[in-house]
Amino acid sequence: MTVSDRWLLPDGVEDILPPLAGRIESLRRDVMDTCQRWGYQLVIPPLIEYLESLFTGTGHDLELQTFKLTDQLTGRMMGVRADMTPQAARIDAHTLGQDGITRLCYAGHVLHTRPRHMLTGRTPIQAGCELFGSASEAADMEVISLMLETLRVAGLPRIHLDLAHVSIYESLVGEADFDRDTEAVIFDAMARKSVPELDELLGGCPAGSSGAHLRELARVSGGPEALAGARRVLQGASDNLDAALDQLGRVSDMLGRDYPEVSFGFDFCELRGYNYHTGLVFAAYVPGHGDSVAKGGRYDAIGSDFGRARPATGFSLDIRALVSLGERLVRKSGAVWAPADDDPALEGVISGLRMTETVVRALPEDNGVDPAARGCDRKLVKQGGQWVVEKLG
Amino acid sequence: MTVSDRWLLPDGVEDILPPLAGRIESLRRDVMDTCQRWGYQLVIPPLIEYLESLFTGTGHDLELQTFKLTDQLTGRMMGVRADMTPQAARIDAHTLGQDGITRLCYAGHVLHTRPRHMLTGRTPIQAGCELFGSASEAADMEVISLMLETLRVAGLPRIHLDLAHVSIYESLVGEADFDRDTEAVIFDAMARKSVPELDELLGGCPAGSSGAHLRELARVSGGPEALAGARRVLQGASDNLDAALDQLGRVSDMLGRDYPEVSFGFDFCELRGYNYHTGLVFAAYVPGHGDSVAKGGRYDAIGSDFGRARPATGFSLDIRALVSLGERLVRKSGAVWAPADDDPALEGVISGLRMTETVVRALPEDNGVDPAARGCDRKLVKQGGQWVVEKLG
Repeated sequence: MTVSDRWLLPDGVEDILPPLAGRIESLRRDVMDTCQRWGYQLVIPPLIEYLESLFTGTGHDLELQTFKLTDQLTGRMMGVRADMTPQAARIDAHTLGQDGITRLCYAGHVLHTRPRHMLTGRTPIQAGCELFGSASEAADMEVISLMLETLRVAGLPRIHLDLAHVSIYESLVGEADFDRDTEAVIFDAMARKSVPELDELLGGCPAGSSGAHLRELARVSGGPEALAGARRVLQGASDNLDAALDQLGRVSDMLGRDYPEVSFGFDFCELRGYNYHTGLVFAAYVPGHGDSVAKGGRYDAIGSDFGRARPATGFSLDIRALVSLGERLVRKSGAVWAPADDDPALEGVISGLRMTETVVRALPEDNGVDPAARGCDRKLVKQGGQWVVEKLG
Repeated sequence: MTVSDRWLLPDGVEDILPPLAGRIESLRRDVMDTCQRWGYQLVIPPLIEYLESLFTGTGHDLELQTFKLTDQLTGRMMGVRADMTPQAARIDAHTLGQDGITRLCYAGHVLHTRPRHMLTGRTPIQAGCELFGSASEAADMEVISLMLETLRVAGLPRIHLDLAHVSIYESLVGEADFDRDTEAVIFDAMARKSVPELDELLGGCPAGSSGAHLRELARVSGGPEALAGARRVLQGASDNLDAALDQLGRVSDMLGRDYPEVSFGFDFCELRGYNYHTGLVFAAYVPGHGDSVAKGGRYDAIGSDFGRARPATGFSLDIRALVSLGERLVRKSGAVWAPADDDPALEGVISGLRMTETVVRALPEDNGVDPAARGCDRKLVKQGGQWVVEKLG
């Protein structure tokens, strides 16, 4: 192995340097502060847990994404968290155990065994909010609004929101009663929106059957008009499906009223990436970036999997990705250069300045260095026995 | 496995809940802001790296503390960082590759296979500062001062600083030319300050020899007076040792002048926990807590191990531990309760308030809930067609 090989980082793993690291920290703080101003309280879930608790209520995808470790103290298997939402659900159901509404938020690194998408790395900085204890539509609306608010804070231009309802697909498949293998093939074809494959798989289903509905539904995803299309396809199919479509309609009304700058559409086939979701789900996109920048939805099942039935909805996003995509104004603060000087008065001046300013102290090796090259725009100089701050050249 | 077993977290791993999580976040921000005002720039090193790069220049202890993972993309072994200081050194030497002085700071989770100390967990939140490119004593002084400043920010009362110099022990052992096994036994006895064992091991060394010096040195650690004791023991032994003792003397002069509230002492046997250190080292303690709360020192060797000789000094601390030990004033901010009401004017009022305040929105399930139980101290009420904020009864 050559020396340069040795310092290569694994694919999808990076050193985040200044000034990017500072921008990430700043957005992380602003997102957390926004969530807290909406009443969401910060929790810090652990980086590792036993596998049983990490995977409770979650899908198989999360298992594949999770790095496994052996606990040297017990010999049991642990995992490094690949998603913090199930951790928040465990904290709500088990650790906090509060009655009524609980609102939690979090931010931290997660690890993925493989990049989830060509454009994302293996160490996203996940931030998110989760609302537990409310099955109401008002809770779904609050979470969607807060997600859009955080994307606004991140300076994301031209957001597109995809709305979906996991229970639409699930009701139709449940009613159709396919065998396990067929269902897996249909799931895959739906997720890829492969109309020819679905025609072949479901072409034999009689008109008006669930299979026929599934086949037609794959054709109607798209912009705001797709909702009317889905209503035509599913007309009179079941009360459950009507209720789901009605809910999607009310959410899109809210979006049109409160977030007119956000475009939206419907995707009735959207199934990937919603491992543990059960109801209304949503994902935000920006032009030119194939992966969603934030997503979430309802996941009422995890609460009961954790031994305590709790309705839940929330969203999460990758701070690292948002910083690359957003157009946030970054305040350039500058810094003051302080010479290497033994004058005891200088110590006091520097301490005072550091209450509000960055002060970089010269060291012996700095002899002849240009302070501007160290990010300084001013310097401390002695004038008539007094230390004063002066603009650089 | 019972249900309650299943949600047990591994030993030394915890859920951090409100309000503790908020206090940790607040201290993390204040520590990072302090470091940045001293000119240290934030970097975010990766959570995982290949083992070769994690362990370059570090000691065997770090290997034992590091969880190992297989990279599914390459089959190579990776590790979850157990210490961020070597990562910062790699970034300085390899990724940034700047000439002259570089100051970096960082904060993030690290993982340890076993708790390093009975009182610490396995997932500390490490924060630290590293100063590269200066071999000067001014650099050591800056790093010690900044460490004491961050402990002040953390509200730690009655700090005691232990000063040591790794090269004192190393020079004496180097001169004595023990065989490998003997050296290991002596190292262990010195680290435990076991005077009887050292008497037995080194009793046969002639007076004035390095072995005799080591034996006597183990007796003189302690308060500020120990420096004079060490000078007596090592008088005329070598210029190297004199230089190390002189440096310790100058640092203690600085402490007496700039940090009179900090007590300090010397520990010439201190060897444990300084895996990669080479020169002046230091550790801060508070009464009643056996483990150090912050520590650091010079580690000039890692730079050259990374293919680029760079003198380096820095410190790190565990934010999680500091929050338990410190006495920081926490600003209680309170929150405003907003009713579940369809009035469109309410939306605007809430948006406006949220620019500076926390507003918790009532959901249908909140019917009859006491807003005070949700952390609110005020509520929004409608008076004469206007929404106003009112104190809770």
